[in-house]
Amino acid sequence: MSTQPSKNLETFPNPNPDRDYVIRMRMPEFTCLCPKTGQPDFATLYLEYVPEALCVELKSLKLYLWSFRNEGAFHEAVTNRILGDLAGLISPRFMRLTADWYVRGGIYTHVVSEHRAPGWQPKFDPPVVLPPARWEGFQGH
Amino acid sequence: MSTQPSKNLETFPNPNPDRDYVIRMRMPEFTCLCPKTGQPDFATLYLEYVPEALCVELKSLKLYLWSFRNEGAFHEAVTNRILGDLAGLISPRFMRLTADWYVRGGIYTHVVSEHRAPGWQPKFDPPVVLPPARWEGFQGH
Amino acid sequence: MSTQPSKNLETFPNPNPDRDYVIRMRMPEFTCLCPKTGQPDFATLYLEYVPEALCVELKSLKLYLWSFRNEGAFHEAVTNRILGDLAGLISPRFMRLTADWYVRGGIYTHVVSEHRAPGWQPKFDPPVVLPPARWEGFQGH
Amino acid sequence: MSTQPSKNLETFPNPNPDRDYVIRMRMPEFTCLCPKTGQPDFATLYLEYVPEALCVELKSLKLYLWSFRNEGAFHEAVTNRILGDLAGLISPRFMRLTADWYVRGGIYTHVVSEHRAPGWQPKFDPPVVLPPARWEGFQGH
Amino acid sequence: MSTQPSKNLETFPNPNPDRDYVIRMRMPEFTCLCPKTGQPDFATLYLEYVPEALCVELKSLKLYLWSFRNEGAFHEAVTNRILGDLAGLISPRFMRLTADWYVRGGIYTHVVSEHRAPGWQPKFDPPVVLPPARWEGFQGH
Amino acid sequence: MSTQPSKNLETFPNPNPDRDYVIRMRMPEFTCLCPKTGQPDFATLYLEYVPEALCVELKSLKLYLWSFRNEGAFHEAVTNRILGDLAGLISPRFMRLTADWYVRGGIYTHVVSEHRAPGWQPKFDPPVVLPPARWEGFQGH
Amino acid sequence: MSTQPSKNLETFPNPNPDRDYVIRMRMPEFTCLCPKTGQPDFATLYLEYVPEALCVELKSLKLYLWSFRNEGAFHEAVTNRILGDLAGLISPRFMRLTADWYVRGGIYTHVVSEHRAPGWQPKFDPPVVLPPARWEGFQGH
Amino acid sequence: MSTQPSKNLETFPNPNPDRDYVIRMRMPEFTCLCPKTGQPDFATLYLEYVPEALCVELKSLKLYLWSFRNEGAFHEAVTNRILGDLAGLISPRFMRLTADWYVRGGIYTHVVSEHRAPGWQPKFDPPVVLPPARWEGFQGH
Amino acid sequence: MSTQPSKNLETFPNPNPDRDYVIRMRMPEFTCLCPKTGQPDFATLYLEYVPEALCVELKSLKLYLWSFRNEGAFHEAVTNRILGDLAGLISPRFMRLTADWYVRGGIYTHVVSEHRAPGWQPKFDPPVVLPPARWEGFQGH
Amino acid sequence: MSTQPSKNLETFPNPNPDRDYVIRMRMPEFTCLCPKTGQPDFATLYLEYVPEALCVELKSLKLYLWSFRNEGAFHEAVTNRILGDLAGLISPRFMRLTADWYVRGGIYTHVVSEHRAPGWQPKFDPPVVLPPARWEGFQGH
Ligand SMILES: [Ca+2]
Ligand SMILES: [Ca+2]
Ligand SMILES: [Ca+2]
Ligand SMILES: [Ca+2]
Ligand SMILES: [Ca+2]
Ligand SMILES: [Ca+2]
Ligand SMILES: [Ca+2]
Ligand SMILES: [Ca+2]
Ligand SMILES: [Ca+2]
Ligand SMILES: [Ca+2]
Ligand SMILES: [Ca+2]
Ligand SMILES: [Ca+2]
Ligand SMILES: [Ca+2]
Ligand SMILES: [Ca+2]
Ligand SMILES: [Ca+2]
Ligand SMILES: [Ca+2]
Repeated sequence: MSTQPSKNLETFPNPNPDRDYVIRMRMPEFTCLCPKTGQPDFATLYLEYVPEALCVELKSLKLYLWSFRNEGAFHEAVTNRILGDLAGLISPRFMRLTADWYVRGGIYTHVVSEHRAPGWQPKFDPPVVLPPARWEGFQGH
Repeated sequence: MSTQPSKNLETFPNPNPDRDYVIRMRMPEFTCLCPKTGQPDFATLYLEYVPEALCVELKSLKLYLWSFRNEGAFHEAVTNRILGDLAGLISPRFMRLTADWYVRGGIYTHVVSEHRAPGWQPKFDPPVVLPPARWEGFQGH
Repeated sequence: MSTQPSKNLETFPNPNPDRDYVIRMRMPEFTCLCPKTGQPDFATLYLEYVPEALCVELKSLKLYLWSFRNEGAFHEAVTNRILGDLAGLISPRFMRLTADWYVRGGIYTHVVSEHRAPGWQPKFDPPVVLPPARWEGFQGH
Repeated sequence: MSTQPSKNLETFPNPNPDRDYVIRMRMPEFTCLCPKTGQPDFATLYLEYVPEALCVELKSLKLYLWSFRNEGAFHEAVTNRILGDLAGLISPRFMRLTADWYVRGGIYTHVVSEHRAPGWQPKFDPPVVLPPARWEGFQGH
Repeated sequence: MSTQPSKNLETFPNPNPDRDYVIRMRMPEFTCLCPKTGQPDFATLYLEYVPEALCVELKSLKLYLWSFRNEGAFHEAVTNRILGDLAGLISPRFMRLTADWYVRGGIYTHVVSEHRAPGWQPKFDPPVVLPPARWEGFQGH
Repeated sequence: MSTQPSKNLETFPNPNPDRDYVIRMRMPEFTCLCPKTGQPDFATLYLEYVPEALCVELKSLKLYLWSFRNEGAFHEAVTNRILGDLAGLISPRFMRLTADWYVRGGIYTHVVSEHRAPGWQPKFDPPVVLPPARWEGFQGH
Repeated sequence: MSTQPSKNLETFPNPNPDRDYVIRMRMPEFTCLCPKTGQPDFATLYLEYVPEALCVELKSLKLYLWSFRNEGAFHEAVTNRILGDLAGLISPRFMRLTADWYVRGGIYTHVVSEHRAPGWQPKFDPPVVLPPARWEGFQGH
Repeated sequence: MSTQPSKNLETFPNPNPDRDYVIRMRMPEFTCLCPKTGQPDFATLYLEYVPEALCVELKSLKLYLWSFRNEGAFHEAVTNRILGDLAGLISPRFMRLTADWYVRGGIYTHVVSEHRAPGWQPKFDPPVVLPPARWEGFQGH
Repeated sequence: MSTQPSKNLETFPNPNPDRDYVIRMRMPEFTCLCPKTGQPDFATLYLEYVPEALCVELKSLKLYLWSFRNEGAFHEAVTNRILGDLAGLISPRFMRLTADWYVRGGIYTHVVSEHRAPGWQPKFDPPVVLPPARWEGFQGH
Repeated sequence: MSTQPSKNLETFPNPNPDRDYVIRMRMPEFTCLCPKTGQPDFATLYLEYVPEALCVELKSLKLYLWSFRNEGAFHEAVTNRILGDLAGLISPRFMRLTADWYVRGGIYTHVVSEHRAPGWQPKFDPPVVLPPARWEGFQGH
């Protein structure tokens, strides 16, 4: 099987669409280029979502992240782009992407962006399944 | 007494059905097989529930988890299946299962799924007894 | 002064009954016996309460915990019994007991049980004084 | 300049009374005496408040804490007394004091007490500026 | 390119104004002078905001922080001033600044201040994207 | 099979007597009584040894530790007694026992005792297999 | 490419045989069966070695570890057997294997075993390249 | 029994004088006065010793530490004085005292002092029983 | 000034050649390609050295590490190559490079390699300035 | 008393010159300027020494560190200069200075430098009082 970087994300059917549940992924191997200087940038990405009909396939997600390796991208824009690509792909009930960027200029930056399906509400109150704002295991680079 | 892997879960009567309380279990010894490749998969499971009339018996739970050792199972499906089996067994007021899967393809995955009895509401407001989204002691494998 | 294990809990008057405040106690020295096998069981107990007219006296609490040393007790039942004894003693506005039991059969178990005075509501909204679900310093045994 | 223990707390004008903001102070150097035995007691205090017209001056706060060094004081009473003194001094919108007492009789005790100005509500919903129940960096003595 | 301390903050257009997302920055290199004694003060600053039309440019932010190096500033006032400058610059939907000041007189101080655009409400309920009160990685100096 | 507390330790043959290797055991469930007051004492024990012809059998070790539950024992004496019993049982090349006793009188106590076979030397220089003075995971009770 | 469990370990030539250097591997996915009861056992393995002419190939090492999944094995024996297999395969200058077994009977066990080539000495004094007795990141299961 | 601060330390016979073993004590409740300013100072003390004929009695040690509460003492001098008192009392084979003083002037200070009996050598080589330079659990105040 | 990836490392004169001192650098932004599969690999590098006449210039080191971004490299070979390049460049008294590679196949790998100038000995005995085998802050990816 | 930055370090007599003991100081408030760019640099300094006849006076040390605030200084040179100044001042038996510099160019740098009095040897063997290479509590900035 060929493994090349690719923007072609793949999906698989959600095996339990009747239930609100969360899939969380920590992805410490993200790198792209700074559009201004061409120098490499690095981040750890944290994806959290409540699937509707589809889930994101793991291997294609890995190749998708790889595809940014030689592309220029601003921190805020690329975090929102990836969230947009993934949410557009699977139309989840809820999705959040957190990018923990390596330090630049002595400043450490996170970008945290969310999507919700229009009109969707967590099934229960309080909606404890919604992930907290912090993933266990945030690393200090 | 015979100890064999088994899907036959056992129960015992909830000693305090008049009260909403939480039982939490951390189970670091879960392993099954990847349905695609046949290779072993590993996870730590975290079970949290508010019992109604019944509780899950500890030893049968251990044998039940063992019974997945030679079965193929996708991450999302098996997490929801175990939640379904346990919730079906004891009809709890609330139940949540978190599976913290070992890293694959450089990506760390959690699956978190919940069940609530229809119409059930926590007795108090705010319902502080409902467990938070993170168990203390999440391990980095 | 005699120091013997004893179920006779003592109290002292709440010095500030006009205020909702929380007393939290971490008690790492609890042990009892398994009713099935007679073998010792161990737990760290975490007590949190908002007192009404009375508070639990520290030394009698220590002797009370000691009194379980040679008694058989199931995890769920004894956690609720202790909560019941303490709540019955001082009729607090709010009380929660968390028992963090040592590992058995490869499974780590917590039992968390709460009591509230009927009709009692936290004075403020949001009621930040109510303790969070996790005590700082949960130990991995 | 004289530095003597003193109950005379001083204040300074809140430089931003138009805004709800939080001042948090960790004070690891508190000691007093047990009224029963005369033996020393120790605690780390955590103060958190939203000021109204006044703030607590740092140096006088230090001397105020020092003034308890040779006084007898019960855990619950002195925590509430200090909260009362500070809240009486500056009439804050919100104030919380947490006392983390050193272990006695094998039991670790916290006392957490709050004050709110009558009728005061956090300006926003949800009121994220209100401090969480746990200060980062709680020490195990 | 000239790099001098400067109060001239710069901005760039928010690439995703249609979405509520959070930018968080940890800035451990802040120092100013105590107005009373002239001695240096140090803090780690944590900035968190939901942008509207504009974002804060990283390099100008660094030079802005540098500009306080030789200025006198009280803890509470300067924290609120920086929040005010940044909020005035970009009119964000939400902004919070936390200053974690180094210990003085044996007391550790945090100042936490927030701004919200008038009438702005988080888009969803519960508004999980709003940052929690604690940044991961608070340092003990 | 009967499980009763017992001083009868059992052994099994060292499967690799030709090699210097270390077996380390952390045993958090030790309790005995204070000979002066009759009150319970608690410790976590850490055993580390290089076996000669025999190893300590796990289940009998557990029952042996249990046998101290109702016996009076001073910290220093019982630590050395257990080391003496275990070393007498299996005549190891090297053995060390560390007892981490729960706090008493505000003071935390460790007792660390070692045995070496007369004339025994580690095979290599430097003898890196000899365990360091600290076991990972020392708990603060 | 076929991936089946296999005892056939593979090697590759050491790219820098002129230098004493250390390769360390943490392998959290080891499981075998208890020879007495047939129940699953789990361990995290830590391998550290100074290669001579050969290194252990990563994928074959993974399949080798997998091959123990359905075999009975005592803790001490299997740790030494794996060390023996690996040392026999590549005749390293130095090799150490640490097995951190999951808790059984309330007792946590490590087995640490070493091999050195006869007559081999570290090139320098002190031989700082020899790994310390503790791998960073020992997990509490 | 009277409990008053006292410089009269008491001893008890070493139950195992034939063996080199270490007693370690962590004492977080030490306070004295600064001789220059009269202000309170605080430290956590760590005592480690290999006893000869005598051991330090725990309760008298606690009262001895209490006796410094109202005395003036410089950091370096008082650490060495306490080491001298304790070593003079029991003539140990080895003794080390570490004082971890609370921050003053933005600077955190440790003082570490040792005593050895003239001519005494650890019995074995390497003398692993001698404590390492760091006690687990050093606190950041 | 141009910033392009480059193998041209630069140096500056050691300002204190009369003294043995250590320079340690943690470099979390290393990435190269797997020679077999072409997929990206990641590592954190830790460099520690005692300079002789020259030191490694920081900015050229950063560009040098960048130069591996699109090159194929095996873990063991590239770690030794970088050590060789740096040691060849500045002929240090001592140098050690540790590469902490991200997990592959469920296995976490470190490679640790050292260089010493022929005949060089640390000036003092014991040579405490030589760095320990572990850098504080090893991350779990 | 005047408090101005000053290179005039002061001393006080070592109260226990007959004993080898260690004074360790953690100083998180160091800042100077980069000689190339004029931009601020930050470091935490760790000083460890065995005094001979003199000790470094705390307040003058603080003012001395302050005196670098507006001076240009390279990392390696200034670390060695401070070590030289302090060692020249008090001629200690042993002194080590560790500077933990804030990240620059994505690289974290430590500089560790030592001084010993000519001919001085630690009094005992092994010389456990010599501090280890790592201070507890190294911060990740
Ligand atoms: Ca980070
Ligand atoms: Ca509500
Ligand atoms: Ca994990
Ligand atoms: Ca636990
Ligand atoms: Ca709401
Ligand atoms: Ca505490
Ligand atoms: Ca802090
Ligand atoms: Ca301890
Ligand atoms: Ca040697
Ligand atoms: Ca372990
Ligand atoms: Ca030797
Ligand atoms: Ca400290
Ligand atoms: Ca030597
Ligand atoms: Ca790692
Ligand atoms: Ca020696
Ligand atoms: Ca650092």
